[in-house]
Amino acid sequence: MTSASVRVPARQQSIRASNLALAYRLVLDAPTPVSRAALAAATGMTRATAGALADALLAAGLVAEVAPPPASSAGRPATGLVPASTGWAGLGLEVNVDHLAACVVDLTGAVRHQVSIEGDQRGRGPGPVLADLAELANRAAADLAATGLHVAGAAVAVPGLVRSTSGRVLRAPNLDWQDVDVVADLTPRLPVTPLAPAVGNEADYAALAELAADRGLRDFLYVSGEIGVGAGVVFDRRLFTGSRGWAGEIGHVTVEPGGDACRCGARGCLETVAGLDALRAPTPDAAVRAGAGLGRAIAAAVNLYDLDTVVLGGAYAGRPDLEESVRAALTEHVVSAGWAPVAVRRSGLGGTAAAVGAATSVVHGIHADPAAWEARA
Amino acid sequence: MTSASVRVPARQQSIRASNLALAYRLVLDAPTPVSRAALAAATGMTRATAGALADALLAAGLVAEVAPPPASSAGRPATGLVPASTGWAGLGLEVNVDHLAACVVDLTGAVRHQVSIEGDQRGRGPGPVLADLAELANRAAADLAATGLHVAGAAVAVPGLVRSTSGRVLRAPNLDWQDVDVVADLTPRLPVTPLAPAVGNEADYAALAELAADRGLRDFLYVSGEIGVGAGVVFDRRLFTGSRGWAGEIGHVTVEPGGDACRCGARGCLETVAGLDALRAPTPDAAVRAGAGLGRAIAAAVNLYDLDTVVLGGAYAGRPDLEESVRAALTEHVVSAGWAPVAVRRSGLGGTAAAVGAATSVVHGIHADPAAWEARA
Repeated sequence: MTSASVRVPARQQSIRASNLALAYRLVLDAPTPVSRAALAAATGMTRATAGALADALLAAGLVAEVAPPPASSAGRPATGLVPASTGWAGLGLEVNVDHLAACVVDLTGAVRHQVSIEGDQRGRGPGPVLADLAELANRAAADLAATGLHVAGAAVAVPGLVRSTSGRVLRAPNLDWQDVDVVADLTPRLPVTPLAPAVGNEADYAALAELAADRGLRDFLYVSGEIGVGAGVVFDRRLFTGSRGWAGEIGHVTVEPGGDACRCGARGCLETVAGLDALRAPTPDAAVRAGAGLGRAIAAAVNLYDLDTVVLGGAYAGRPDLEESVRAALTEHVVSAGWAPVAVRRSGLGGTAAAVGAATSVVHGIHADPAAWEARA
Repeated sequence: MTSASVRVPARQQSIRASNLALAYRLVLDAPTPVSRAALAAATGMTRATAGALADALLAAGLVAEVAPPPASSAGRPATGLVPASTGWAGLGLEVNVDHLAACVVDLTGAVRHQVSIEGDQRGRGPGPVLADLAELANRAAADLAATGLHVAGAAVAVPGLVRSTSGRVLRAPNLDWQDVDVVADLTPRLPVTPLAPAVGNEADYAALAELAADRGLRDFLYVSGEIGVGAGVVFDRRLFTGSRGWAGEIGHVTVEPGGDACRCGARGCLETVAGLDALRAPTPDAAVRAGAGLGRAIAAAVNLYDLDTVVLGGAYAGRPDLEESVRAALTEHVVSAGWAPVAVRRSGLGGTAAAVGAATSVVHGIHADPAAWEARA
């Protein structure tokens, strides 16, 4: 085959793939079922082309056909397409310092399965932790069989630095993990073989879950308070990842110069005053110190990033006192606060936001490229 | 005129404008003069179309024609196009706390005129300061007349928060300016009437100057050390401005909790330990304190943004001791430092980087939309 004869079909393929994605996006974003005629009108395609794309989405199990709504005008009512609530689903997994979690999200974005196990993972080493995680994943997949859902892919949230190209965990200070190949370890044990799981930072995935849960959000800082403290930064409804995927390391911003030693090796990091271990300390001023440190670090982030919204997640979601401290610190320390106050609120997502976000990221991958899923239907 | 008959010419106009910009970009980026034939080959346009675009750029004064290089092969050598070094130029102006500056940059990116006046601007009020700045601007324009350059537009760098939509200076704490309409004040007094000047943050403009001076830079934090301390953040060779244009306010990151009062109203801001006033203090530990504070604030920025390069500008450019302190702080506090060390260097641009960047931004505006400048030739 000559290279010219390859290029032409490839281009045609890519036009069809892009039209299929466009049609799917319209169905996903529509508040009500979308008829084939409406699909043609909205895309400017012919009825025949739009109909063929609709059939392809149905055949791939990515949309479902529903009965027409009560007719509001004369004529034969059309059936409408909606995102499928059976078929493919995303599996989200989370390793955190004091819990493991698994979550399944379907193509409509609904959470269909969620389980977490409390328990300190420090000192266990990556092998046993990932074995437990794989067991959670397989239990979730088995539970799903009865509901008509099957796992399309998995994403794993970890509390550390991940190399985005390989999925290797370079460093998770609170787990004491260094250079752990999560992909190699989990791939053969997950219920999605032969697809390797994606691996990402837990606060980044939690920020994605927050974004999916609130269509009104646009630019925000999501701060995840666990044993470690991390942040996900979202601009224009997209994750901001920095030069190498490691943006948002708010837990290691210095808030107490010369303060307590941090697991990362430095002193006075935010984690040392506002991580869960510090928050649970029985000293009377633990909460005050945590609130002040958290406020200073978040004010630094807002001064540096110019964000208009802060969402407090993880353990912080249950702490109105910390929300107040952060609000006060922003008013005091953010130089633009007088012209554009920063909204502060607590997340409603609970402790497994990262697992939900990881599962959602798998679903978003399907949403963005439905053509890739036709062959697997 | 019907709307349909408007739309078609508008679209044709926009295709020509986009082709003109493409042809200009090729001439701007080429290391050697570009012949009309090379222009046609590189753009895929016909010789006639490429020739017409070349003629249009010449007529607009945006490129110049130069003699052919010594012929390396047989045949009649072609003349080549280069960016014009006469004609339009950008005027950059800077208000800072202890100096005013003006600068002219031509279409090749060369600085053709530069003047600054030292002197404390605090307490003078916006009116007299802007009157002095306008005088600098008019002197620059007059000096230019003999060189065949004329001012195409102006941009003003200020050490404060600017509302990007209106150019109003909302707050410049160190000048004690609040809500100053720089555009209304300067427009009638500048040598570029009827064009209103752009107004922006001084560190942002200085970062643009750094970017223009070093083609190897991609993602970096530029930190401007003046009486106030600011930063410009660049990702993918573009300025990162945040939600409202106020990103990079590193001067108000808290580095000494409960420390000295800052002009912004808070305590312990970076400016209070590493602004020029603090650096000039006769106390023996001023430099140590400044280096430690600067290091912590820059480490916070790198942890939050994940940047691989830091450039120290303004007064910091002359301080190797601060460079060392910053490097040490990054090694200690940046959680990813072990996997991807952060490069730290001092700017070579000198004290008027912001004025150079402001002038460069005007030139970039011409580079991006040459069609808009045809009528003004």
